[in-house]
Amino acid sequence: MTRYVYDFAEGGKDMADLLGGKGANLAEMSRLGLPVPAGFTVTTDACREFLHTGKVPADLDLQVQEHLASLERGAGRLLGQADDPLLLSVRSGARYSMPGMMETVLDIGLNDNSVLGLGMSARNERFAWDSYRRLVQMFGNTVMGMDGTLFEEVLTRIKEQSAAADDTQLDTAELIRLVETYKDLIQASTGEAFPQRPVDQLQRAIRAVFRSWNGERARLYRRREHIPDDLGTAVNVQIMVFGNLGTDSGSGVAFTRDPATGRAGVYGDYLANAQGEDVVSGIRDAVPLDELANRDQTSFAQLLTHMRTLESHYRDLCDIEFTIERGALWLLQTRVGKRTSQAAFAIAAQLEREGLISRNEALARVDGEGLVRLMFPRFAGSAATKVIASGIPASPGAAVGAAVFSSAEALRRSAAGEKVVLVRRETTPDDLPGMVAAEAVLTSRGGKTSHAAVVARGMGKVCVCGAESVTVTSHCFTAADFTVHEGEVISVDGSEGNVYLGAAPLTASAVMDYLESGAPHPAAHASQVVKDTQHFLARADAARRLEVRANADTPQDAARARRFGAQGIGLCRTEHMFLGDRRPLVEAMILAETDAERNAALAALLPPQRQDFIEILEAMDGLPVTIRLLDPPLHEFLPDRTDLSVRAALADAGGKALAGHERKLFEAVTRMQETNPMLGLRGVRLGLAIPGLVAMQTRAVAEAVVARVRAGGDPRAEIMVPLVATTEELATVREEVVRLWAEVMSKAGENIACPVGTMIELPRAALTAGRIAQSADFFSFGTNDLTQTTWGFSRDDVEAAFFSAYLEKGIFETSPFETIDREGVGRLIRLAVAEGRDARPGLTVGVCGEHGGDPASVHFFDRAGLDYVSCSPFRVPVARLEAGRCALEPARADEVD
Amino acid sequence: MTRYVYDFAEGGKDMADLLGGKGANLAEMSRLGLPVPAGFTVTTDACREFLHTGKVPADLDLQVQEHLASLERGAGRLLGQADDPLLLSVRSGARYSMPGMMETVLDIGLNDNSVLGLGMSARNERFAWDSYRRLVQMFGNTVMGMDGTLFEEVLTRIKEQSAAADDTQLDTAELIRLVETYKDLIQASTGEAFPQRPVDQLQRAIRAVFRSWNGERARLYRRREHIPDDLGTAVNVQIMVFGNLGTDSGSGVAFTRDPATGRAGVYGDYLANAQGEDVVSGIRDAVPLDELANRDQTSFAQLLTHMRTLESHYRDLCDIEFTIERGALWLLQTRVGKRTSQAAFAIAAQLEREGLISRNEALARVDGEGLVRLMFPRFAGSAATKVIASGIPASPGAAVGAAVFSSAEALRRSAAGEKVVLVRRETTPDDLPGMVAAEAVLTSRGGKTSHAAVVARGMGKVCVCGAESVTVTSHCFTAADFTVHEGEVISVDGSEGNVYLGAAPLTASAVMDYLESGAPHPAAHASQVVKDTQHFLARADAARRLEVRANADTPQDAARARRFGAQGIGLCRTEHMFLGDRRPLVEAMILAETDAERNAALAALLPPQRQDFIEILEAMDGLPVTIRLLDPPLHEFLPDRTDLSVRAALADAGGKALAGHERKLFEAVTRMQETNPMLGLRGVRLGLAIPGLVAMQTRAVAEAVVARVRAGGDPRAEIMVPLVATTEELATVREEVVRLWAEVMSKAGENIACPVGTMIELPRAALTAGRIAQSADFFSFGTNDLTQTTWGFSRDDVEAAFFSAYLEKGIFETSPFETIDREGVGRLIRLAVAEGRDARPGLTVGVCGEHGGDPASVHFFDRAGLDYVSCSPFRVPVARLEAGRCALEPARADEVD
Repeated sequence: MTRYVYDFAEGGKDMADLLGGKGANLAEMSRLGLPVPAGFTVTTDACREFLHTGKVPADLDLQVQEHLASLERGAGRLLGQADDPLLLSVRSGARYSMPGMMETVLDIGLNDNSVLGLGMSARNERFAWDSYRRLVQMFGNTVMGMDGTLFEEVLTRIKEQSAAADDTQLDTAELIRLVETYKDLIQASTGEAFPQRPVDQLQRAIRAVFRSWNGERARLYRRREHIPDDLGTAVNVQIMVFGNLGTDSGSGVAFTRDPATGRAGVYGDYLANAQGEDVVSGIRDAVPLDELANRDQTSFAQLLTHMRTLESHYRDLCDIEFTIERGALWLLQTRVGKRTSQAAFAIAAQLEREGLISRNEALARVDGEGLVRLMFPRFAGSAATKVIASGIPASPGAAVGAAVFSSAEALRRSAAGEKVVLVRRETTPDDLPGMVAAEAVLTSRGGKTSHAAVVARGMGKVCVCGAESVTVTSHCFTAADFTVHEGEVISVDGSEGNVYLGAAPLTASAVMDYLESGAPHPAAHASQVVKDTQHFLARADAARRLEVRANADTPQDAARARRFGAQGIGLCRTEHMFLGDRRPLVEAMILAETDAERNAALAALLPPQRQDFIEILEAMDGLPVTIRLLDPPLHEFLPDRTDLSVRAALADAGGKALAGHERKLFEAVTRMQETNPMLGLRGVRLGLAIPGLVAMQTRAVAEAVVARVRAGGDPRAEIMVPLVATTEELATVREEVVRLWAEVMSKAGENIACPVGTMIELPRAALTAGRIAQSADFFSFGTNDLTQTTWGFSRDDVEAAFFSAYLEKGIFETSPFETIDREGVGRLIRLAVAEGRDARPGLTVGVCGEHGGDPASVHFFDRAGLDYVSCSPFRVPVARLEAGRCALEPARADEVD
Repeated sequence: MTRYVYDFAEGGKDMADLLGGKGANLAEMSRLGLPVPAGFTVTTDACREFLHTGKVPADLDLQVQEHLASLERGAGRLLGQADDPLLLSVRSGARYSMPGMMETVLDIGLNDNSVLGLGMSARNERFAWDSYRRLVQMFGNTVMGMDGTLFEEVLTRIKEQSAAADDTQLDTAELIRLVETYKDLIQASTGEAFPQRPVDQLQRAIRAVFRSWNGERARLYRRREHIPDDLGTAVNVQIMVFGNLGTDSGSGVAFTRDPATGRAGVYGDYLANAQGEDVVSGIRDAVPLDELANRDQTSFAQLLTHMRTLESHYRDLCDIEFTIERGALWLLQTRVGKRTSQAAFAIAAQLEREGLISRNEALARVDGEGLVRLMFPRFAGSAATKVIASGIPASPGAAVGAAVFSSAEALRRSAAGEKVVLVRRETTPDDLPGMVAAEAVLTSRGGKTSHAAVVARGMGKVCVCGAESVTVTSHCFTAADFTVHEGEVISVDGSEGNVYLGAAPLTASAVMDYLESGAPHPAAHASQVVKDTQHFLARADAARRLEVRANADTPQDAARARRFGAQGIGLCRTEHMFLGDRRPLVEAMILAETDAERNAALAALLPPQRQDFIEILEAMDGLPVTIRLLDPPLHEFLPDRTDLSVRAALADAGGKALAGHERKLFEAVTRMQETNPMLGLRGVRLGLAIPGLVAMQTRAVAEAVVARVRAGGDPRAEIMVPLVATTEELATVREEVVRLWAEVMSKAGENIACPVGTMIELPRAALTAGRIAQSADFFSFGTNDLTQTTWGFSRDDVEAAFFSAYLEKGIFETSPFETIDREGVGRLIRLAVAEGRDARPGLTVGVCGEHGGDPASVHFFDRAGLDYVSCSPFRVPVARLEAGRCALEPARADEVD
């Protein structure tokens, strides 16, 4: 016989799969001897069977009956007993927190008789009828499936008749009338009476909670949060305690440390004469927790003791819900508490110092995304600014601008020099121009993977999405009690998910200042957050196996990357050096009609390239600098074909032809037009198609190396060939590079080596890595292109067009451009690493796509056995931290294939 | 001690790797007791060692010496013996025929003494001095490395002085003077004398042949023909015989059957008083072989006997070079002879009927490319047309047009309605417009994988390339004695590689007529080639495991495919049904701004789609019809953005805006612009992005099936989802298809099943085939897109741009768009087949890319375990034939991984 019901005394915190998070923690507290109202948990197994078969397991009701009997014995009262009824709460509790998404039924056990008994035992008749009124309403709606507004309408009518401003002003007689009216309504609506048998109430409430797992809201929430649909929820049945029995009663929430800053010391809110729901809903203003000391010294002291117990036991910040019923303290819930990034760093460091957790555990408690948030400027809280809404922190940073409600308005105002925040219910591809123009994006719908979130992250724009309390219309939005009209200034904190009215004052990031300085801060002057960051980065550096390099194309970026802790450059894109002032030089190369013209153009490109390399090698002296040969389609250096076509047509219509140079450009652009430039003449194909290009670039690198050596430096250049599909391409280019390199070295009388490697960024390169490794001193995965070709979509075209739809439909869990797709792209990477190293033992393998700075992807690369990740300079600290964290992680079963 | 020299009596035809093709066949003939002048072969091993180390193996000269001694013993004469010299020929002979690409030295053994002895023994002084003159010239050029033109200049001068019109008019005295002048020239040029010691001549000639393996021409040829560079050549040393000793001597070539038509009976040419070279070079007109019977009945009878011996021994058409030296018949070479496609079919069928080869061997002797050639119209040979040049038959078919020599002229004339043939030395991407405009392309340079060949095959244009006897200038070309000026009409036969002067008369293909009729021809009326084709197709159909389906989008194509033997439709592209008249309907769907507008547009598309499906299902009644959901990017249905931009700008400049519909189109095109449309919103993504599209298409198929059933038919529709990258896409669309299908069936009261499968055309689909198979009733590899994404190039952009460079550089062996890339794309296919069938045993797997009709690819697909190939209707017979052939082939080691 499967066991479907566990007494709180029988469970524990490691049983969350079976008992849900709340049930497991209630059990844990019970076992610790903390004052938890007695109760039991119906397992997720039972829920899954119910959802699967439409029926509860055969003996569930019997098992519930037995546990109820035990509960009654312990309490010395019976459920719904007429003179002094035992009352129960029935609450959902899934493996992962889904706040407010499923159902709760309170005050089970009240009926026409026991309501009288409760009035007497509580010495409060009105309280008893108010409780009964709530049960009937909640039961009718939740369990019997009636439309909740029907009850609201009755309540409103009776309040009007009695001229009561709110519920609390209804007297006992009115409440009695309300109960009767509700019961009639139920009978009329459903054809059955409100059940008077307490056990019927209990059994039906449990089934209702099960059913609520598949409610519309719950399913949407799970999809957004990527919680599997097949987990089901547990149900917690617990003796009711009441914080609303008078001034000697009350409810509160408490944190064992400040979840905003991480400061040690208790923190929380307390509300006298209230139930827990009232504290959370904020109907009345709660007081700081310290106040409780003045009102009920005993309970406060007990609470502090219990909080210490819980924190030592859970070895982390806990948040707690408690109720005091006529002077008796009850703990109703606890869990490891949510916190800001700053708090996460601070608390992990404190707990480590306090000896409560090991230094490895402390490192595991902080993460790269948190570090990113600490690197952005933040709004300094002040009286002048008020949080008017909160949502999901979807793309970090802080921005201030005028609220606008359409893409067109965003464009209009930003063209006029105004900073704007685009506010939309949700964004679509049509909002793209507005998003580009805006400082930040705020939406009221959608999660971390919504269109707004995905596109904003891609653009590096601040974004708060899914701010559900915000209502957006075409010319204003309302949030809390505020209405913000078009043009009014708001401030958006994409790191923490907050929206402020007005222009909130910004403070620079102390962490960024520290990182930019490139040196440890002397402890005396550093703020706590800098000390904590420093501590964890040092720890991660000591622990990690993966090296971290940076993608950098300029001496400035190289220098910054080094300050941020990069151990070299994993990707130096030479095309970036061809832009700006030098574009005419490239144009000349492309337009060359003879070998002589082309050679002259290449010769003119050589000196500036060489100078760039000299400066970059200087900035990275003693560390590897991986220089990639020219990669992009050449027409990227030329004007747009449609623009030129329009100009040519207009010139023609005006009776004059295009001027000489422009005409040549137009011809070149027309000749070189490609249907799919990403899949055209680029990468290594350029080197094979344009005589002299590889030679020029090789010479520039080699001469720069010679110059650096002569200047006393230690240059470590590596040359990387892009977009190789077949080993013959690499071998051909490699031969040329090696020959040229030897020529320059021999002429200079130097003998410095230069590894020649390749990007693995096409599926075929990965599939033939064993052969390619024979011509490659190193591999570097270009995961951007590898993702594009493996999936067959170009990021430019599809991310805005249909990724959000894919994320909403559950086709993606995350964008494969943000986090590496383990199943497809990842499989190619593992295969290439294995076969590359088989063919060339000790082959150096890295990654230089944007995934190199994504925490989840860094973990994958570590497991896949890469030697280094290379990412943008700003992501270097993130990669260092995550590389350290994953070195300490046990291998996961799904990663060991 | 390695053995480097084999007497002819020691070798055999299976030793071609070691002895080269010629050496192996000479040995084979010797062993058969045929009259072959004695000789020996120096192995390819010796050559490889020479090429590798720069020296011949230590004891090679000794081994040669020993074999020479044995040769001398047998002949009873010594090499270069003063009174009656033994003379030797030294010829190259590699594993694969490389005609004319390497060196030959004849008459080794002549020197200042032995020339006199030869004059006496041959009773012909002039002959002796002419032979000596040839040796000195050949040796100076080939062995001593002198510029050949130096000798030509001397010869010309002496001819002028003696007023001789050609070499044959020089008398003995003049030849003696020529020899002396040559020898002086050698001394002056090289600083050493022409070697008088016969053994020196021999040893140096052998080394010269080795060296010629790496000559410029030989290397280019090997690259073009994809012959590995590391094979090396063998050297055949053989006693000279002379066909130029008078009218009782002569040389000829003979074929055991007619290599042009396949007709049984001997066939060849004979030239009296001539050496073999003279027959081949065509300096003098040879007579038909039959003539020999009148001149030398004995030799002719012997020759016939030997030919019968050879054909029974080789069990195939043999070609033979022979020489009659004063009434004695000598066979100098034999090999399995080249033949036309028609001859290949005829001879295989004959040999099978004659019992010389089994029916499986006969089937192995014909091939798909040959069948393709038989399916094109051909030029009927006639007196009015003359072959003026021959080249490589690079793209089959026959075309007639005015010769043009530039892309511009091709465009100009074709725009004026004239048919043209583009003639170029070689083509480049700049010639692309001209190639599009031309009926055929003729080049004087480049092989089967040259730019011209690759692009012409891609376009389905006739092409002859590498016609080396043709000299192309900017306004004419010369070939043989003819000069063809711009505008003069020529005829190009891309099936056989011939070029004719004037408009050659075309005859329809009897094979095509037969295939188009769709029924076996009654034997009495069929031509032989039709009977042979019918025979081999029937045999292949009986043998093959692979099914053959066709790619067809119209009822006409479906009907033709069925006549050609297709067993269903493997790819029915629904986008093709959206073109033409129906384009406005698609436009309306794309421009729809509301759900109502879009639904109306979809509703209007439904009836024509359904009607198409009804007709196609009718044409393929009882056979599977795989219908692919809409695939291409939507802007393919809209006008070009640049055109519209120009029109908008011109309208603007003219003070008027674009008209309403055009403006809407312009907006839509601008909104939908994609950087890389191939990687954009297309395939299954369309079905997920456009509400109602999948439903409309499913409904059209389902209703067509119902209509066909009501009409008494047996419709077997399958629905195929394109461009799936992840199983969730397929599962989502599949769910909709299944739901809609059930709805239509239930409404119609029918219960017909419809398999729903997917294309595997992205690397990720192949890499996750196991999961995808869970939602797929079948897989169909889209090898075009799979090749594009695996390699990261788009066919449109790269094939013309750099494929020929890649082929020339040896980076490709063949275009991966013509023949499946086994290493990369093929690996994905094997993996997907294995993991798909693991997940769903018995999963049907086919291919519907263009590779489905490529012979080499068909063999790969058979080995990879596919169930069917699907190709264009015209390729169906090819696929049937090749599928039959590969069923009989033993598995190759490299295919069994």
